[in-house]
Amino acid sequence: MHSKANPSAVVLLSGGLDSATTLAIARSKGFSCYCLSLDYGQRHRAELAAAAKVAQSLGATEHRVMHIDLAAFGGSALTDTALAIPTTPAAGIPITYVPARNTIMLSLALAWSEVLGARDIFIGVNAVDYSGYPDCRPDYIAAFECVANLATKAGVEGKHLTLHAPLIQLSKADIIRQGLPLGVDYALTISCYQADAQGRACGVCDSCRLRKKGFADAACPDPTPYF
Amino acid sequence: MHSKANPSAVVLLSGGLDSATTLAIARSKGFSCYCLSLDYGQRHRAELAAAAKVAQSLGATEHRVMHIDLAAFGGSALTDTALAIPTTPAAGIPITYVPARNTIMLSLALAWSEVLGARDIFIGVNAVDYSGYPDCRPDYIAAFECVANLATKAGVEGKHLTLHAPLIQLSKADIIRQGLPLGVDYALTISCYQADAQGRACGVCDSCRLRKKGFADAACPDPTPYF
Repeated sequence: MHSKANPSAVVLLSGGLDSATTLAIARSKGFSCYCLSLDYGQRHRAELAAAAKVAQSLGATEHRVMHIDLAAFGGSALTDTALAIPTTPAAGIPITYVPARNTIMLSLALAWSEVLGARDIFIGVNAVDYSGYPDCRPDYIAAFECVANLATKAGVEGKHLTLHAPLIQLSKADIIRQGLPLGVDYALTISCYQADAQGRACGVCDSCRLRKKGFADAACPDPTPYF
Repeated sequence: MHSKANPSAVVLLSGGLDSATTLAIARSKGFSCYCLSLDYGQRHRAELAAAAKVAQSLGATEHRVMHIDLAAFGGSALTDTALAIPTTPAAGIPITYVPARNTIMLSLALAWSEVLGARDIFIGVNAVDYSGYPDCRPDYIAAFECVANLATKAGVEGKHLTLHAPLIQLSKADIIRQGLPLGVDYALTISCYQADAQGRACGVCDSCRLRKKGFADAACPDPTPYF
């Protein structure tokens, strides 16, 4: 599964704009991509369907959905429908933050990468046009890469594992500008925190606002269907 | 849920000797303990039943089992029944190693601790009488604590989270010597990699050998039922 011509990488894929662009970047670097999505009890399943379409359209080698019920822990508007999704900017870390979600997803990516013999993991976190989540920052990514190399058999054997976060310092407009020439079909992606069953977006949540502004700033037509 | 009199802690509980002792230590320090076990597709479920009994006998506040199918990734004799459990010591990291298991369990403990407002997580890893897994070493624990503090809302707010690994430098005999006066009933615990449905141990796997030697070195009768 691992050859010099086409090394394998695990790519975290949510079905949103950022992770789709990240997959396109990983593909453009010649990786054979194993995409991992997490069904964690999020409000809507439309994003998992979007992830499957994105994986196929960008030539992923495999797309796998892991299930874990983070709604059992609660504490986030993305897993608890009793908490409303905010539609105006607020100070601090918003209620849409899912506790430890990126750490959980990266740990699963780490497990799969170890079984595949892959030495590269891609995650589409962004610390510019983002919702202020702590687990999207460069220091966090560097710390997890350190854990990944200490945690695993490969790390013990001196085979370095690299955690790629190619979007981390880009604006949303720059992300779109990178993805378009790499063939990302943004119409397939869903960023909305409360998309409906048809995958249509609300247009007013934090994630929709950042996405809308990104297309506007990139002077690119917004292909998002809104309800 | 979080008071100065009885701070909350999340304790990873496998049902084995080490994590039972760790829970007893956390209780002796005055923590209200929220025990987390992982049903990850391991060969036998007897250890999950043992975890529930241990949690109750040591006065845990809550015991929760999360489900995630790590067998889907494969790569370990603990999740793949096609791979035999070794019964003699071998060089290197053994096939019973489950890729990234401790990282996955710690990331889930991190999620729960954040929702509970707990600032302490306990894990019963040991780097003396152990199977040579990379994710049991002190450097790994220190690196994950760093991730935990960068990943979370509490970390951003300057509320330090401590990852406790109180057994990490103890011999198996010393672990038993610590646990007995704290009320651990080792007859409830299961360490065997291939226990049967009644919870009886094989006596020959790596984990059984370490456990047997621990009771012998501690000059304590071994309460383990063997098949």
